[in-house]
Amino acid sequence: MDSRELLIRMIRAGAGEVPADVVIRDVRLLDIVSGAVTETDIAIVADRIVGTHARYEAERVIDGRGRFAVPGFIDTHLHIESSLVSPLEFDRCVLPHGVTTVLCDPHEIANVLGAEGIRYFLDCAEQTIMDVRVNLSSCVPSTAFETSGARLEAEDLLPFRTHAKVVGLAEVMNFPGVLAGDAGMIAKLDAFADGHIDGHAPLLRGQRLNGYLAARIRTDHETTTAAEAREKLAKGMAILIREGSASKDLEALAEILDADTSSFVALCTDDRNPLDIAEEGHLDSSIRRLIATGCPVHHVYRAASHSAARIFGLADRGLVAPGWRADIALLEHLEDCRVSDVIAAGRLVTPELFKTRKAVNPVGLSSVKARPVTPEAFRIEATSGRNQTPVIVIKPGLLISFREDAALPIAENSLQPDIGADILKAAVVERHGRNGNIGKGFVKGIGLKRGAIASSIGHDCHNITVVGASDADMSVAVNRLIEMGGGMAVADGGRVTAQLALPLAGLMSLKPFETVTQAMHELREATQKIGCTIPEPFLQVAFLALPVIPHLKLTDMGLFDVDRFGFVA
Amino acid sequence: MDSRELLIRMIRAGAGEVPADVVIRDVRLLDIVSGAVTETDIAIVADRIVGTHARYEAERVIDGRGRFAVPGFIDTHLHIESSLVSPLEFDRCVLPHGVTTVLCDPHEIANVLGAEGIRYFLDCAEQTIMDVRVNLSSCVPSTAFETSGARLEAEDLLPFRTHAKVVGLAEVMNFPGVLAGDAGMIAKLDAFADGHIDGHAPLLRGQRLNGYLAARIRTDHETTTAAEAREKLAKGMAILIREGSASKDLEALAEILDADTSSFVALCTDDRNPLDIAEEGHLDSSIRRLIATGCPVHHVYRAASHSAARIFGLADRGLVAPGWRADIALLEHLEDCRVSDVIAAGRLVTPELFKTRKAVNPVGLSSVKARPVTPEAFRIEATSGRNQTPVIVIKPGLLISFREDAALPIAENSLQPDIGADILKAAVVERHGRNGNIGKGFVKGIGLKRGAIASSIGHDCHNITVVGASDADMSVAVNRLIEMGGGMAVADGGRVTAQLALPLAGLMSLKPFETVTQAMHELREATQKIGCTIPEPFLQVAFLALPVIPHLKLTDMGLFDVDRFGFVA
Repeated sequence: MDSRELLIRMIRAGAGEVPADVVIRDVRLLDIVSGAVTETDIAIVADRIVGTHARYEAERVIDGRGRFAVPGFIDTHLHIESSLVSPLEFDRCVLPHGVTTVLCDPHEIANVLGAEGIRYFLDCAEQTIMDVRVNLSSCVPSTAFETSGARLEAEDLLPFRTHAKVVGLAEVMNFPGVLAGDAGMIAKLDAFADGHIDGHAPLLRGQRLNGYLAARIRTDHETTTAAEAREKLAKGMAILIREGSASKDLEALAEILDADTSSFVALCTDDRNPLDIAEEGHLDSSIRRLIATGCPVHHVYRAASHSAARIFGLADRGLVAPGWRADIALLEHLEDCRVSDVIAAGRLVTPELFKTRKAVNPVGLSSVKARPVTPEAFRIEATSGRNQTPVIVIKPGLLISFREDAALPIAENSLQPDIGADILKAAVVERHGRNGNIGKGFVKGIGLKRGAIASSIGHDCHNITVVGASDADMSVAVNRLIEMGGGMAVADGGRVTAQLALPLAGLMSLKPFETVTQAMHELREATQKIGCTIPEPFLQVAFLALPVIPHLKLTDMGLFDVDRFGFVA
Repeated sequence: MDSRELLIRMIRAGAGEVPADVVIRDVRLLDIVSGAVTETDIAIVADRIVGTHARYEAERVIDGRGRFAVPGFIDTHLHIESSLVSPLEFDRCVLPHGVTTVLCDPHEIANVLGAEGIRYFLDCAEQTIMDVRVNLSSCVPSTAFETSGARLEAEDLLPFRTHAKVVGLAEVMNFPGVLAGDAGMIAKLDAFADGHIDGHAPLLRGQRLNGYLAARIRTDHETTTAAEAREKLAKGMAILIREGSASKDLEALAEILDADTSSFVALCTDDRNPLDIAEEGHLDSSIRRLIATGCPVHHVYRAASHSAARIFGLADRGLVAPGWRADIALLEHLEDCRVSDVIAAGRLVTPELFKTRKAVNPVGLSSVKARPVTPEAFRIEATSGRNQTPVIVIKPGLLISFREDAALPIAENSLQPDIGADILKAAVVERHGRNGNIGKGFVKGIGLKRGAIASSIGHDCHNITVVGASDADMSVAVNRLIEMGGGMAVADGGRVTAQLALPLAGLMSLKPFETVTQAMHELREATQKIGCTIPEPFLQVAFLALPVIPHLKLTDMGLFDVDRFGFVA
């Protein structure tokens, strides 16, 4: 239909002169401005709300009696890759939780495939029912201390700048680079000076924070304490309260969300795995918990919708009101945020609706380019005269690691794991086909008594990370990953006991999310069988290689002391 | 300087590593988010704030001790023409009141000169120290019931759409046209569907309001009661609290501004004349009075700055924080909003600063194209058999008028004013050189005992409006206006006793605002000398011809019954 004719139909339907396309009848509408709840019809034409606070007629009537209507939720920062499924499966999995818009940073796939990965996400974003918006990955690779599959400079990002789904520049993690005036970083900030620039500034305070903000970086999802949040708010930064699978800041930050701040606070998940989505939910879980801590209901829903939209310049959404995008969550309970139906751009979300999407060809199916390894590849030579070896110590639920030094057993002149002391061998196998590096070391705190676990998800460069009690099982697990084109595997006694193929760039499955959730359960069981004592071993293994998180990490280039910001000699 | 080098300098100055350009030292900074007041330095580089909440050094230090810093004020809707001076003089007059951004609608000059008038405003906007942003006039002419100098269709506005100073489409006054699907109106709404569309919807409620809002119209400055404002807020409309010279809504609307709503409410002046600016102030006066009514201080300042910026998509301003545009008002008193210094885009506002602007050649210097008139032009033939004549009744301070029917004296077969009953003759002389129309009638309530007053400001088409006790003095006043190329004049006993030339499109002076203010005083005195009993005769005469304001009006085409929306037979 001609856009002018459609506009006339919207106006006339809003005025009650012609029927709407869809009416939600007799629903309790929450006003996120005033907090009032009003029983009303909501009339929709095409993708737009055209009427509220009145009686309307339409072809299609959705019974809203006894239910609440709130604006669709906006996840302001996440990596879809962390859901382990494709963007289209993510859509099918997360949209029913009321999340009608996400601002994603395709940082993981970009580290593997570069611009091709970003293009794939943009192609998917044109198909999803939820509105997937993309911030362009600003830090690929994150550091020079690991081998990535790609490098993105300002000139690589610029062609995407005007794409309809692109919002701006994604989380500027390299805050030391900003403060030091790093040329590549400055070029990116300069290229996106007119648009949104997303922040990432854990623990940054005082004048260093000011310097970072002077670059017009406007948001932060890495704030972990209320005091830090209050300083950032006072300095004009919007706080995105994050509750992911690994990083959980909601409890600490709930107190900052009140009537004064609710237009300057939004919500995000950052990284949320399919098990958590299945068991706890997505942003709906954050909303439920914030309300449970005592935050005023309409301010929580405001932060989850209109505030998020305004902070990121999405002027068309965030309110259930005439003239606004028809993104609506219908709830059984308001305080408990139990979503029973979702309207996305005017369409009632049903299983059939997802079938109307066009498939997008997967990319990066041959991205795992490592050569098969033998057990000998993991041999660590004992250094004569040195009887203490640095060991990475991990603790359940923490991404930061610690360092211990241990005297390890030696056999055939090579250092051995110490199963009794819970010290396993760890290795990071470069897999982008660049140099065949294998970084090796030891890790404590996982609990394996035998076998090995391996994953091609290893932030941020996504080389293959493997930990094990035996070199043989480590090679079995790694080789299976290479065969599968990436994924997760558990090996025990020379064979693979559980696996999940992630052939889409070595990061995402080609399967439905339900299948992935089932495989995650099987992987969890398999790790427990070989003695694993932490609840999320693959999550923690995935952060073993990230050299920007304190204190001791392992990349394909070797053991890295994050505090000294250099390799361990 | 290269933009990357400048960015590095901003970052380094924010981090305290190099001196800033300007530091405001030891000022009390109001946090418009939390309401906290903190004594701090504010560091500025170029047009940007780079540091707060710390000690800074700079070449130029402004002593802030004992003063408060708040974000510069944003007037969200006004017609600069109503100040009777050019945009550059408006800048010099109003910026010292702390108004660092205005969103103007050049509706008056557009009715006279069409696109040329808009272009002139954009040229001026590139020179002003304050940031003058333009919404493109959507309703030129307002109605078909008067003769305008120009007509603007969607295709006339589109060339300006991407100009850096253009925000969107200005107040959509023609709400009946929106609701009726008027083709020209729909074309404009469609052309600006992706940008901001400003509203104007007095008394529009219920489903008709919904229909209007369905067109994505987002703001209203015509709300006059709190109940109306609450309905509009609940329907996603931002309320711009207006306090102009003629229309004063602040008292009635103050109660809607609270912690819940302050991100959805902003301030505007719409039309404010130079006398009011001189005597009461500009937005600073609105802020002062809102605080005096009991609105929380930081919510008032928020509405005047950040909320306004967000509502209109100006993402770079509205907070005094690192990375934000350095638009700052320094106040002697916070509650009393006494502005003592202003920083506009990093520059301290001084008389010298205004001298750095390039002059812009005035336009429309020959826009008053009426031919000189004789007293006979105002003769109104008596109709035989009819002894009652409709009379427009005006009341001080009201733009709406009323109707009375009176038996008027007749001389030489023509109807005469009845000075004893305070009934004067009125006429509207078409002045765009189109048809030479003269609409004639009678007006009651001005009080003149002799003489005449005339003005080429006559909303919205700006023909010449004249009222008088004598046809001779009416012609003297009108002819002086024609000689001056437009303006205001008082005639008494065959000669002009006071005048103000407004040769810039017949709307604005070429003189400094101080001169205009002085002339306004003289005009006021001259009208009082001939018996005028209302305080603002020129303001009320300027609205005598506006056929969209009830109840009885006079255009160049004749006497207009606004309630019946047709000419009086």
